[in-house]
Amino acid sequence: MMNYYGEPVTKLIEEFSKLPGIGYKSAQRLAFHILNMPLEKAENLSKAILEAKLNLKYCELCQNITDQSPCKICGNTKRDEKMIMVVEGPRDMAAYEKTNEYFGLYHVLHGSISPMNGVSPDDLKIKELLNRLKDNKCEEVIAATNPNVEGEATAMYLSRLIKPLGVKVTRIAHGVPVGGDLEYVDEITLSRAFKGRQEIE
Amino acid sequence: MMNYYGEPVTKLIEEFSKLPGIGYKSAQRLAFHILNMPLEKAENLSKAILEAKLNLKYCELCQNITDQSPCKICGNTKRDEKMIMVVEGPRDMAAYEKTNEYFGLYHVLHGSISPMNGVSPDDLKIKELLNRLKDNKCEEVIAATNPNVEGEATAMYLSRLIKPLGVKVTRIAHGVPVGGDLEYVDEITLSRAFKGRQEIE
Repeated sequence: MMNYYGEPVTKLIEEFSKLPGIGYKSAQRLAFHILNMPLEKAENLSKAILEAKLNLKYCELCQNITDQSPCKICGNTKRDEKMIMVVEGPRDMAAYEKTNEYFGLYHVLHGSISPMNGVSPDDLKIKELLNRLKDNKCEEVIAATNPNVEGEATAMYLSRLIKPLGVKVTRIAHGVPVGGDLEYVDEITLSRAFKGRQEIE
Repeated sequence: MMNYYGEPVTKLIEEFSKLPGIGYKSAQRLAFHILNMPLEKAENLSKAILEAKLNLKYCELCQNITDQSPCKICGNTKRDEKMIMVVEGPRDMAAYEKTNEYFGLYHVLHGSISPMNGVSPDDLKIKELLNRLKDNKCEEVIAATNPNVEGEATAMYLSRLIKPLGVKVTRIAHGVPVGGDLEYVDEITLSRAFKGRQEIE
């Protein structure tokens, strides 16, 4: 790549292009946006990157990314400690939190079992989950891993591990997405939606 | 916005969302990408932002962004100093440089005349351009401002200012883009392409 703008700007464009979903043109646009920013705002961004990285902590209970441990959810006595929803990543937890319909606790696995990608159960925060079940407060573990091969395998694995402890293990429902158009839904989802049909009251 | 991930990560997501073309979801993806990076790489990005900002310099001749002044192009004795191509921004210059067909010099105006946005000729690097013409080395100024209202007005303005100095002022050709499909080209461009037709040799 030719160095049209001098070393520091070219370097910044390069660094931005390394980020996911950012091609050369976008990186260029971002770099020029930063050059036109007040210095203070550029400093804010630069600092935020380092701070997030340096202050990265995981909640000792749910293993979510946090700045305090236990995190706000685990430390909230109003949450229902009888339920633990197991998710693959922090963003899944945030997605469920946004529904404003779930008031139990979470557990973040930080991945899913995937022999193809060399991720074994030992690479996930499963031991930490089992530890949390020891106090017998949790009555139900909800496997909310992704609805794909790895997520299903992980849910299965957890179920086999946890059921013998006398804790109920459930799986979030599969079905047609609300607001979707039936004709665009794949066959497997349609078949799951059929099998999971419920009586209209 | 709820703070699901703790202060530093939330702050990073916020800072990313402020960038152009980056919504909350992308900002979140970028932030998590950075959290999963080795610390060293995150430091590189953080540093690149500050360095680009702190080392921002403009070439004393062409006014382009550079790390040395005169810049590599102005300082290159192989470039044809009889031609100066005037562009609105550094990216336009880079675009022309990529064609590998122009070997003259450049001049970056850093904008175009736009009374609507409060940009007057005094806000652009026009004085600097006139200064460069004083040594009488330049024989042709090519107005390569954007083909929109502001760019045309700027080209016009430059032409009136520079012609009296005995320097030829030209405008890049308007016409149908190469590889384009005629039926999708707007009427004004088609009409310009017709007026600018050239005999096939």
